[in-house]
Amino acid sequence: MRDTSTSEIENLIALMAKLPGLGPRSARRAVLHLIRKRALLLTPLADSITEVAATARECLNCGNIGTNDICPICEDNERANGELCVVEDVSDLWAMERAGVFKGRYHVLGGTLSALDAVGPDDLRIPRLLDRVPAEAVTEVILALNATIDGQTTAHYIADQLSGQVRLTSLAQGVPIGGELDYLDEGTISAALRARKEI
Amino acid sequence: MRDTSTSEIENLIALMAKLPGLGPRSARRAVLHLIRKRALLLTPLADSITEVAATARECLNCGNIGTNDICPICEDNERANGELCVVEDVSDLWAMERAGVFKGRYHVLGGTLSALDAVGPDDLRIPRLLDRVPAEAVTEVILALNATIDGQTTAHYIADQLSGQVRLTSLAQGVPIGGELDYLDEGTISAALRARKEI
Repeated sequence: MRDTSTSEIENLIALMAKLPGLGPRSARRAVLHLIRKRALLLTPLADSITEVAATARECLNCGNIGTNDICPICEDNERANGELCVVEDVSDLWAMERAGVFKGRYHVLGGTLSALDAVGPDDLRIPRLLDRVPAEAVTEVILALNATIDGQTTAHYIADQLSGQVRLTSLAQGVPIGGELDYLDEGTISAALRARKEI
Repeated sequence: MRDTSTSEIENLIALMAKLPGLGPRSARRAVLHLIRKRALLLTPLADSITEVAATARECLNCGNIGTNDICPICEDNERANGELCVVEDVSDLWAMERAGVFKGRYHVLGGTLSALDAVGPDDLRIPRLLDRVPAEAVTEVILALNATIDGQTTAHYIADQLSGQVRLTSLAQGVPIGGELDYLDEGTISAALRARKEI
């Protein structure tokens, strides 16, 4: 009796505890909070998550996550301005969109090349990228990959493949807005110094 | 087009960000993680949360959260051993159950008396507690309220009401297992010293 009756709640706690950023204790707290705020939070969340489970999919063109086969950015003809921003992950695309400055389209690789993890070009969305460049009349590919070794290796590989076909750029490196020198790593400081500009 | 198409995912992120312990950034990370682990995590979570939204309720007897009108602990006749443990919150009940030592029943007050927040006895599950003591032939009431001012005020109020009817006890105060004196507050140390025992 006891096992079956509360197992739905325990099951929910166990599932919530698998989310990044939540452990068993915070999952318990979250589930109690949900149950207390049933009308405000639990029921809407149940509906929302069921809806997302039924509809979320990767854009067949760029790898963005949306609810259609082709994502709204790829559908939007105003964004076919010849600029294509290559990112590692959907979260990077979302971060770029929050900045609200880029008006072109994206291509989500779904990771980086990695010799250690045996990730080759065909494991990422790289072949599709090479197809898109001529097909969508791309004039500039912005390689917005993370400033990690794997990210930069991947950027070099893509730059090699597209060399001569389009303008290739990467995000500027330097001191973040509001960043204090004292808290920055040496790599960032030396990159910012090398890329210094006339005032 | 853009607004309607991704709004399900944005809506889910907004709801997740309302959970305790999650902010907008971690909610985005959690939702992306969910979508990537659709079969393993998103679909089971959708089912689980819908199930809990449909079935979770407070036990009419003790205030525990379960999926029936009467919770498994109140249903279990083996736990009617005359001991009744009074806690502030369901999370406290769960913590007691994890310890696995208490074999009696619980009574969840749903908060503490608070002059500041205008919480009186009738706003808590105190009248029901006073009914349960004779009705369930309770012989000992263990006041396992938090060691806060409001918790202790509430404990004193309940002890007053039940005085003479049952044995009244409270959890021992002292040094936590594995606790280092250097990290304990003075109140705990002086309580532990006052309650010192012969070895």
